[in-house]
Amino acid sequence: MELGDRVAVIKGGMRYEGILMPSRSDHVVIKLSNGYNIGLVPDSIEVLERAQKHEKQPEQIRMREDLPLVTIISTGGTIASKVDYRTGAVTSQFSAEEIISAIPELGDIARYHARVLYTILSENMRAEYWIELARAVAEEIQNGAEGVVITHGTDTMTYTAAALSFMLRTPVPVVLVGSQRSSDRPSSDAAMNAICASTVAVSDIAEVCVVMHGSTSDDYCLIHRGTRVRKMHTSRRDAFQSINHPPIGRVDYTTRRIEIFSDYRKRGECELQLFDRLEPRCALIKYFPGADPEIFNHLIELGYRGIVIEGTGLGHVATDWIPFIKKATDNGIPVVVASQCLRGRICDRVYDTGRDMLAAGAIEAEDMLPEVALVKLMWLLANASSLDEARDMISKPLAGEISGSTSMDV
Amino acid sequence: MELGDRVAVIKGGMRYEGILMPSRSDHVVIKLSNGYNIGLVPDSIEVLERAQKHEKQPEQIRMREDLPLVTIISTGGTIASKVDYRTGAVTSQFSAEEIISAIPELGDIARYHARVLYTILSENMRAEYWIELARAVAEEIQNGAEGVVITHGTDTMTYTAAALSFMLRTPVPVVLVGSQRSSDRPSSDAAMNAICASTVAVSDIAEVCVVMHGSTSDDYCLIHRGTRVRKMHTSRRDAFQSINHPPIGRVDYTTRRIEIFSDYRKRGECELQLFDRLEPRCALIKYFPGADPEIFNHLIELGYRGIVIEGTGLGHVATDWIPFIKKATDNGIPVVVASQCLRGRICDRVYDTGRDMLAAGAIEAEDMLPEVALVKLMWLLANASSLDEARDMISKPLAGEISGSTSMDV
Repeated sequence: MELGDRVAVIKGGMRYEGILMPSRSDHVVIKLSNGYNIGLVPDSIEVLERAQKHEKQPEQIRMREDLPLVTIISTGGTIASKVDYRTGAVTSQFSAEEIISAIPELGDIARYHARVLYTILSENMRAEYWIELARAVAEEIQNGAEGVVITHGTDTMTYTAAALSFMLRTPVPVVLVGSQRSSDRPSSDAAMNAICASTVAVSDIAEVCVVMHGSTSDDYCLIHRGTRVRKMHTSRRDAFQSINHPPIGRVDYTTRRIEIFSDYRKRGECELQLFDRLEPRCALIKYFPGADPEIFNHLIELGYRGIVIEGTGLGHVATDWIPFIKKATDNGIPVVVASQCLRGRICDRVYDTGRDMLAAGAIEAEDMLPEVALVKLMWLLANASSLDEARDMISKPLAGEISGSTSMDV
Repeated sequence: MELGDRVAVIKGGMRYEGILMPSRSDHVVIKLSNGYNIGLVPDSIEVLERAQKHEKQPEQIRMREDLPLVTIISTGGTIASKVDYRTGAVTSQFSAEEIISAIPELGDIARYHARVLYTILSENMRAEYWIELARAVAEEIQNGAEGVVITHGTDTMTYTAAALSFMLRTPVPVVLVGSQRSSDRPSSDAAMNAICASTVAVSDIAEVCVVMHGSTSDDYCLIHRGTRVRKMHTSRRDAFQSINHPPIGRVDYTTRRIEIFSDYRKRGECELQLFDRLEPRCALIKYFPGADPEIFNHLIELGYRGIVIEGTGLGHVATDWIPFIKKATDNGIPVVVASQCLRGRICDRVYDTGRDMLAAGAIEAEDMLPEVALVKLMWLLANASSLDEARDMISKPLAGEISGSTSMDV
């Protein structure tokens, strides 16, 4: 019996099937088909299937020179990893050859250059990594990449997508992709998401977008605009949804055809531009009943430069917050109001509280997601020519993050 | 021409129709059919319809003594108000007679006792008002109410619903209702929501629930469990959705029939119990990339007793937050982790970050909404017999706020 064998284990009358994993104790550890490991002292154990030996030489991967060049930038996350059953270790796929050997269909879509930028858990992502990533993408495009695919952990992928959307004006597709289930699980979405992302990377959609499963079946991926997408489920494969705007389109997994749902910027429509500065001293505060506005003093003391409030409903906070909005504003700190409803538009002109908030200096995030408003504020405070310009531009669309005003009934 | 007249105003070739409102300037102010006011200096103005005179005596309202007694507790909000076209002032409906005279259908469902508890904007709601409200509801039930309807502003209605769900074990229906559009607007949802709420108040659903429009048509209202509902749109009438659990049921507006979708506690199944204590010193912090864990020190210094983190994905924060989770825990402050995805379940056993968070003392909110986790923590810290018991009960269902663990694939 060897690590990596598929085994059946009997324990207390229950039968468990899985892959034999390394263990540091007397327990036998097996990886179940749902991807989780269990450890137990078995009553009996039987080999169902021998581990595949990995000693054979990988086949020579041939890249087709007639296909467009796509750079795959790896930042970490579930999609960039594979579990080595012989050691139990999670490793990253590095070379283009390794990636194509894992997902051979990719070789029919493009030829690839692979670049590992960093390997971090996406919950550790922050503004300085966004800057490094935006620079790397720009460099790859300058060096001839006709499309860029970025593998990314799903936890903060949409924050990164928003950051790149403001930091780059791109003449080619820049596609973020991840997976909700690692490639060792039967329900993994890694291969299909990668194939659909690559398909978008060679398309004429020259935007920063997120390509992820569109349903719980393996039938299509949605192409979300980078400033409109949100992770709306902790674990489902179709967790990513476009909010307040239709997705740009979808990729049929079987036919690889792209169906378009909304306007988009086309390949070559603009020159490459990189704006690689961000002001990280911005905060997102969620309002809740009884929340203490003292947090404003704290942020002012710490030297914060911008604040986004996730308010209730049309964009409200308690009346006792309003003097603090004014204080921050008077200190040159823009205060932007988005809604914890997520869907719909801020409108602070309907009720007294909203009007008082506007009078105190609050700026409406329109129909921007709170997370996008935060990233946009970081970008504006570092790129606008003045604080006034930054304040003015918050409510104006720069990268598809805001729609024209629609009826309240929508 | 008088205030309240329906007029047509011509300005710069554009024609506007609306109700003539009071104005303190040279402008003519009219209320458009979408509910908004515009002010302009008209080129011409014409009366289309004279204001209805309000001088006639209201008809004598007769309550049917054969119908069950429902108490309507008013807390403020759009649904409790009407716009007086003659003054432009928003006033509250007070007596049961006034309410029935505004919505006569209510008189066929129940007889009413009306009680104005307070008139506040729901964004100013806070724990002390929840306590007052829970006491009032308990009092009304003790005094014979067979159902209670609470009119409430929509901004924080779901926080209040969660608070009442933990504070009351009720043998009769306790129904929160609001409206997204005031009753002076043609698209108002006030009457239909009130009628459906009253229908639920005389049903056998003895839970704290929220009854609001279920679609954008006037066809049915959904009955949401108080611990599972969230406002998911700033302005739509069907903004309220049940998250991570089906609604209890729905009320067909035409037939008044209730269709049931899930289990519920039936009328009379439990004795009335009131737990009227809350610990207001609890905070909800939303994590975002680069967020400074220094906020923990601030909250500890301010004497906070509980913290809920709205983490990413399965319930993550950056690695540099983990020592602060431990510090708060060591200071006797429970730290609960919910997800900003809103949908799905927290699982901090899959990735290293999550495991480290659990080791530092973080408590998983399971599939509870972040807002509900906050309210539950306020309740537990004031009602559990010990801190250990409070910590234990966070992940266990008390009022339908948590479901049994389901497959990750759901």
